Amino acid sequence: MTEDLKANSIKKTSPGGTPASPVDQSMVVADKFPLKLSSGEHLDNISIAYRTWGKLNSEKNNAILVCHALTGDQHVLGPHPQTGRPGWWELMLGPGKVLDTERYYIICPNVLGGCMGTTGPGSINPATNKPYGTDFPIITIKDMVSAQSLLIEKLGIEELFCVIGGSMGGMQVLQWSADFPEKVFSAIPIAAAARHSAQNIAFHEVGRQAIMADPEWHNGRFIEKEVSPERGLAVARMAAHITYLSETALHKKFGRDLQDRADLSYAFDADFQVESYLRHQGESFVNRFDANSYLYITRAMDYFDLAQEYGGALAEAFRNSNARFCLVSFTSDWLYPTAESKEIVRALNTVAANVSFVEIESDKGHDAFLLDEPDLFHILSGFLNGAARHKGLEQNV
Amino acid sequence: MTEDLKANSIKKTSPGGTPASPVDQSMVVADKFPLKLSSGEHLDNISIAYRTWGKLNSEKNNAILVCHALTGDQHVLGPHPQTGRPGWWELMLGPGKVLDTERYYIICPNVLGGCMGTTGPGSINPATNKPYGTDFPIITIKDMVSAQSLLIEKLGIEELFCVIGGSMGGMQVLQWSADFPEKVFSAIPIAAAARHSAQNIAFHEVGRQAIMADPEWHNGRFIEKEVSPERGLAVARMAAHITYLSETALHKKFGRDLQDRADLSYAFDADFQVESYLRHQGESFVNRFDANSYLYITRAMDYFDLAQEYGGALAEAFRNSNARFCLVSFTSDWLYPTAESKEIVRALNTVAANVSFVEIESDKGHDAFLLDEPDLFHILSGFLNGAARHKGLEQNV
Repeated sequence: MTEDLKANSIKKTSPGGTPASPVDQSMVVADKFPLKLSSGEHLDNISIAYRTWGKLNSEKNNAILVCHALTGDQHVLGPHPQTGRPGWWELMLGPGKVLDTERYYIICPNVLGGCMGTTGPGSINPATNKPYGTDFPIITIKDMVSAQSLLIEKLGIEELFCVIGGSMGGMQVLQWSADFPEKVFSAIPIAAAARHSAQNIAFHEVGRQAIMADPEWHNGRFIEKEVSPERGLAVARMAAHITYLSETALHKKFGRDLQDRADLSYAFDADFQVESYLRHQGESFVNRFDANSYLYITRAMDYFDLAQEYGGALAEAFRNSNARFCLVSFTSDWLYPTAESKEIVRALNTVAANVSFVEIESDKGHDAFLLDEPDLFHILSGFLNGAARHKGLEQNV
Repeated sequence: MTEDLKANSIKKTSPGGTPASPVDQSMVVADKFPLKLSSGEHLDNISIAYRTWGKLNSEKNNAILVCHALTGDQHVLGPHPQTGRPGWWELMLGPGKVLDTERYYIICPNVLGGCMGTTGPGSINPATNKPYGTDFPIITIKDMVSAQSLLIEKLGIEELFCVIGGSMGGMQVLQWSADFPEKVFSAIPIAAAARHSAQNIAFHEVGRQAIMADPEWHNGRFIEKEVSPERGLAVARMAAHITYLSETALHKKFGRDLQDRADLSYAFDADFQVESYLRHQGESFVNRFDANSYLYITRAMDYFDLAQEYGGALAEAFRNSNARFCLVSFTSDWLYPTAESKEIVRALNTVAANVSFVEIESDKGHDAFLLDEPDLFHILSGFLNGAARHKGLEQNV
């Protein structure tokens, strides 16, 4: 393991090849033999950018893998190298927090297909010496997890104490449990589903069409043209962003309040705060995200249907798992409603898995998993403490 | 009245100035004095395209005004002059149907700001002799209704037996009741709200940004350039269309079924039926709708907040109304959920109005008002029969 780590020097990467955060590490995996993707295509020398916190103990049994969501990345803690803003799960990770850096060794890789250093459509295609663009193969959640498993192996970890993630991160958690049951001691899929619904596919398709409709997309070859389909990507982000909130959250946060004005403008200005907020969401997103990565990752989510690999029987996906599961959903999440989590719980129960499930009362919508939800923190801390006892982890490692 | 009708020759109009259906009639209103809009601007010589069915009786008390929704028009019955397809409310209008053409005189005008013959952003601006584009003034639901009231006046009708409409049509019904209480004998707002919610404003803003992001929009001057922001408009339509359905409807209709293929394509093709369906919705919409009209009409809906005119007290809007109201909502409508209708019912009750309210069990989402919902037809037929008795209308007029 040490050799491997040494062999792969720490690279500083980010989309467009500009230097990323100095805290980034990167590992080349699939270097011995190429990774066979779900599509049947092969990809070799995959570079995975990741960050870690805490220390791996001598038994190497205190590692927690954090799987990020669609537009997340390895910067669980900030400042984010592109935006300078806090990380996406600062509330969750740190000394004494749920992901206790004094106790666990926490790893968060950027997903395959991403744009924060891991191989993706913005990477250089060795066959052409140009960015892949849409020549990048279609990837799946399974492929993301396969690449992560190679990273974990290179890090010398045989079993992860926990795999945790929300939204698409939760999909990866489920896929990990199915594909590597012997490597997952506990699993926490939050605000997730075992398959992407028709409505969710529909919203993603709107986003993709918005990007592809932007002439600056150039059939995916915009990097070579040194442009970016920013307006299309912003529209995609705006549409998606609505689905991350709840109607109640939008109503409470904005209602019909006007932005910096006393009266309606009788124009197409952003009169309402909610318009101004959405425009800001769109505009700031394009500074940190690659439009092609957005296409590939949304596609991976649409393709996710864990039961399908098992002839439609979701329970079969978990038959070989001995993991302790903790599932969490939020009452106001309409992107991955509680019913989706319950379907997973039913499947887990069918194979007598060790599962606990909590639906948290929240009006914050899907994004609740990223926000200050004390119930979430209490529940997860309790679950991880219990799992640590079962694993025989000392209080302080 | 007859003079007026004769004075305004029947015009055949449609967006872009091409001939529309021969069944279209059009009337110039605001020809004596300009219509003062909510914005404070004035608009004169407004042309209103409309269609009628049935006969106005000698007492002129059997007229029903049908108010169409955002992307509707006067073609309640088809074939639609642009698409050749059936009208949008064929199930509702005809001999023996709810809107019984053997009994009532039914009028449906294209809304102000529309693109099917009524004055809108695609019309010629007399000041420049070019299409208005974004020089067209911002209009409101109130302005639409004011223009309709001038049409009704010119048709010699002092009181409408009924004003009916779904979605934005329902907003017009509410505005009619508030602004012209003496002219509305009965009112049927279906799947509507007294104000547009933050979430609905958000979805509209996504659509507008998609249109404005399309370089073919040319800051609203695309007609002169003989192009059209079709891709932006299609994306707008796709995003909106999702909100018209329910998750259940999408799941039942499409689930994760694939379109014309046995396996995933591992490409950005429309693998899933829901994608193919949405793309079709977007593509077919651009053939019949003007992108600027979409901007103006969505803006009018966003601006709608009936209580605001009355210091925030919605009940005050209905204080002078003697109309019989029948409100209808649908359980799976998440665009205008039942709670919105109930708020209107509460306001009506506060001023002891004559109101009945029905929530219909349906999994079809917001679009249920356009679809085959036998409960809807039974309820509305019953209500109109009762109202006709109260009005002293003979069974056959």
